[in-house]
Amino acid sequence: MSGELYQEIQQYYAWQMQLLDQARTDEWAETFTEDGVFAANAAPAPVKGRAAIAAASAATHRQLAEVHELRRHWLGMLTVSPGATADELSTRCYALIIATRKGGEPRIHCSTLCEDQLVRVGDTWQVKYRTVSRDDIR
Amino acid sequence: MSGELYQEIQQYYAWQMQLLDQARTDEWAETFTEDGVFAANAAPAPVKGRAAIAAASAATHRQLAEVHELRRHWLGMLTVSPGATADELSTRCYALIIATRKGGEPRIHCSTLCEDQLVRVGDTWQVKYRTVSRDDIR
Amino acid sequence: MSGELYQEIQQYYAWQMQLLDQARTDEWAETFTEDGVFAANAAPAPVKGRAAIAAASAATHRQLAEVHELRRHWLGMLTVSPGATADELSTRCYALIIATRKGGEPRIHCSTLCEDQLVRVGDTWQVKYRTVSRDDIR
Repeated sequence: MSGELYQEIQQYYAWQMQLLDQARTDEWAETFTEDGVFAANAAPAPVKGRAAIAAASAATHRQLAEVHELRRHWLGMLTVSPGATADELSTRCYALIIATRKGGEPRIHCSTLCEDQLVRVGDTWQVKYRTVSRDDIR
Repeated sequence: MSGELYQEIQQYYAWQMQLLDQARTDEWAETFTEDGVFAANAAPAPVKGRAAIAAASAATHRQLAEVHELRRHWLGMLTVSPGATADELSTRCYALIIATRKGGEPRIHCSTLCEDQLVRVGDTWQVKYRTVSRDDIR
Repeated sequence: MSGELYQEIQQYYAWQMQLLDQARTDEWAETFTEDGVFAANAAPAPVKGRAAIAAASAATHRQLAEVHELRRHWLGMLTVSPGATADELSTRCYALIIATRKGGEPRIHCSTLCEDQLVRVGDTWQVKYRTVSRDDIR
């Protein structure tokens, strides 16, 4: 994969995680396609569509605010491969959630594998389908 | 942001953190401008200027040496934006400090948000103003 | 170091760590030169050659499988320098191992420094000599 493209994807993910961790849930949802899917082995069913993705994220942030917990999503060990079409990419990376409560010690909330189907939209990318697998759930 | 510039900044930070963690405190201070500022929500006041930044870092390393603690600074989820001038950049990233004592278990000492104002100096960059916000202090 | 080359090395390491963590031990060993060496301060002696590197990794994965532990290797703060020849590079980075047991909490198994001598082989790279130093062992 070209260094230029690899860079683009690294920057896209850094931006996406910063939006999520700032509870900018609508902007976060817009980094997915309108019919984007967020599937997690920790969830009963996949979350489908931007509206549902934004709502699910907002609900999580409300719960975290109640306990004064701040979370940061770290992605790493990213590999990028050609996707189903010329405008798509498949990515695979690790994701950690670092959780810190006000006045508390940081802890690793979970360690996961994140696999995305990305679609180019104009000069950026959007997640068409994301699969997040928590390492503790097997 | 171009992939080439994004790369440059990634390499600059990797180098800067390696200098810090090796207690090369004078070289570390030289990665800041002569009047560079290091402001942290965990500190009573901002540390101003290379001499003070080097001294503060040296003092910390002396304390860590006494308890045989080795710390590694990890930066991630980096975003880079245009700065106030053509020679400046604004960056935002997460920073973790992983602390390990001789014979001990590694622990996350703190999880933070790091926001920099960078200035181009020749073929490299220097920190003009750094703001580090610990997640546990709010 | 050029951004393009820095990218290449980042992608090489992400791929290499994913192979290791998927227990694809033969493919993992092929990311080393035929006579590649893996030296660690936690091991009694350096592991020499692909066959021994694959065998050592397979043995570790068998032990982890018995206790249902999944490990992920994270590399970060990578610096890349010219090597002994035009086809070689020296790299220095941090490496964390995040370990999660089935139904358990993630923990940092160890924090290390990883120093490699890389050799260009065709359009990719191979490790000629790796030195991994655990932070707790001094």
